[in-house]
Amino acid sequence: MHSVQPIRLKIALDMMGGDHGPLSTIPAALAAISEFPHLDLTLVGDAETLQQQLAEHGISEHPQLAVQHAPQQVLMTDKPSVALRSKRQSSMRIALDLVEQGKVGACVSAGNTGALMAMAHFVLKMLNGVERPALIGSLPSTTDKPVYMLDLGATVNCDSDTLFQFAVMGAVMVEEVEGIHRPKVALLNMGEEEIKGSDQIKRTSLLLSECSDINYIGYIEGNDIFSGKADVIVCDGFVGNVALKTCEGVAKLILRRLETALKNSMSAQLFGWLIKPFLKSMALGVNPDQYNGASLIGLRGIVVKSHGNATKEAFLSAIRQAVREVERQVPVKIKDRLEHVLIDKA
Amino acid sequence: MHSVQPIRLKIALDMMGGDHGPLSTIPAALAAISEFPHLDLTLVGDAETLQQQLAEHGISEHPQLAVQHAPQQVLMTDKPSVALRSKRQSSMRIALDLVEQGKVGACVSAGNTGALMAMAHFVLKMLNGVERPALIGSLPSTTDKPVYMLDLGATVNCDSDTLFQFAVMGAVMVEEVEGIHRPKVALLNMGEEEIKGSDQIKRTSLLLSECSDINYIGYIEGNDIFSGKADVIVCDGFVGNVALKTCEGVAKLILRRLETALKNSMSAQLFGWLIKPFLKSMALGVNPDQYNGASLIGLRGIVVKSHGNATKEAFLSAIRQAVREVERQVPVKIKDRLEHVLIDKA
Repeated sequence: MHSVQPIRLKIALDMMGGDHGPLSTIPAALAAISEFPHLDLTLVGDAETLQQQLAEHGISEHPQLAVQHAPQQVLMTDKPSVALRSKRQSSMRIALDLVEQGKVGACVSAGNTGALMAMAHFVLKMLNGVERPALIGSLPSTTDKPVYMLDLGATVNCDSDTLFQFAVMGAVMVEEVEGIHRPKVALLNMGEEEIKGSDQIKRTSLLLSECSDINYIGYIEGNDIFSGKADVIVCDGFVGNVALKTCEGVAKLILRRLETALKNSMSAQLFGWLIKPFLKSMALGVNPDQYNGASLIGLRGIVVKSHGNATKEAFLSAIRQAVREVERQVPVKIKDRLEHVLIDKA
Repeated sequence: MHSVQPIRLKIALDMMGGDHGPLSTIPAALAAISEFPHLDLTLVGDAETLQQQLAEHGISEHPQLAVQHAPQQVLMTDKPSVALRSKRQSSMRIALDLVEQGKVGACVSAGNTGALMAMAHFVLKMLNGVERPALIGSLPSTTDKPVYMLDLGATVNCDSDTLFQFAVMGAVMVEEVEGIHRPKVALLNMGEEEIKGSDQIKRTSLLLSECSDINYIGYIEGNDIFSGKADVIVCDGFVGNVALKTCEGVAKLILRRLETALKNSMSAQLFGWLIKPFLKSMALGVNPDQYNGASLIGLRGIVVKSHGNATKEAFLSAIRQAVREVERQVPVKIKDRLEHVLIDKA
């Protein structure tokens, strides 16, 4: 008797991206193959550096790991246009090429966001029916489900058609990855009163109201992002980026204040052992590292972007996100749904 | 010997605005006159209701209080255009008229933001050199100084000239109200990489770089709003509103998580008496009520907007803000500075 072999997943990792490069990406890769026995990773980067780093972890060869040499590296300071033209042998580009060639199902990078977006767009192309890519990421909420938000910074200015497509893509992502049936989709807007945002937001709202495929619940304000009212929150890339980074800022501010309060109190110092676990669980709950496996969607392939200063944990959580998206074949599902919505509208 | 009498300050309060109306505004008014012995308040609203509420606090007359009857009231659901046309006898409108007539130095309202902005614009008119009004408010920071941010929602779409004027107005506000010499002014933008926001933000950055009157420090991202890097943060009204409300949302999320963590731990319950003061001081530090005396600036008069669901404390802090702006004659200072900047540019 033979046991059934699970289908093997293949993912390429840009090992050289992010502020820490292989110092973060190697430990994350090792944790990932241990967590997912059916996962094969192609480690793309400077082969010598990678072999050295693997050796430091006592590994010379591993059945789930392959090293692919890339002589170049995209720097955080590289302009996207320059990276696109002159970094065709970079770890980022080669990892994307592997996706395009069908050799792997997804790529994960913590590198230069602008360069990654430009290269991914160029190499993988847009899905039919999608005009612009979006970065989608999950945030914590006061319920037990995360809330997904897009666009977090891929497309600065969005017209109503683009925002509408983002809404469809976000809904499919949450249905597939979180298993939520007919997820609640909301548009991020300002003010409680009648003056409601810009013309393109009003027009998007109209488009979504008329689309029976989308469970559109209307406008949502910033203070309700985390309330669980919506499963998917749609906004343009500028607003989404500012909102996401503002969350980081507030979390840092509150932690700092709490730490100061604890430090200044004698009695609190005595009971510090008691309070620390709460602080830690709170920090984890809002830690962007836990939630920064943002996916670039709208493309004919899966690309997950990890934060620039990604730690091992952050890069690992980005790999996990890629695994889920490959398993659920998110781009195919997005394409199918968009076709269905467009037929429905016609 | 006679003691020197301080100059008396006069402020009109829209008593009927906000979710709680006189239930919040009367206690706030009473606290304000006790805090500022040189402050005279004109309480504008339904005279009978106000007299009744005052009587419940044991007051029939008070040398610092005058009641001015207003037969109408702007509702939270009123469209700004409708309020402007058909609510000329409302408490909000009469309070603004008192500013325009020079009978008081400022007005404070917790009412319908859209209506207040429309009415204030119509009644008070813009300062010379200012195209659009802005809502400016102060947020907590990790330093001992607050950070001011504008626009928080008055002007949805801003071109670069408008954003430039906002920067000048914000700098003057912080200089006058916080006493900071040459406050650091930053533009809110996205991403750490080279793709930096929209064209109007790049153009505003250029205008500010060339203006020696402004201590412009460049772009800032959402995660640095509270870091004290900047004293004044400039953005358009949509982005500012979303960022501000997102802060509220994050603070609520973290408090909820911390409370849950404390609740689930037996030992934490035992030491709850110890932890509560920290929780409370933290909540105060990020409580929007403490920071919601947002001022509508760019007008020929002082208008402070308190939050719609303002508590007594929130409305009181809005009155305090109005007192500071009257004392420092902020609109005159803004006008002078703008004239100077424009001469400098010419």
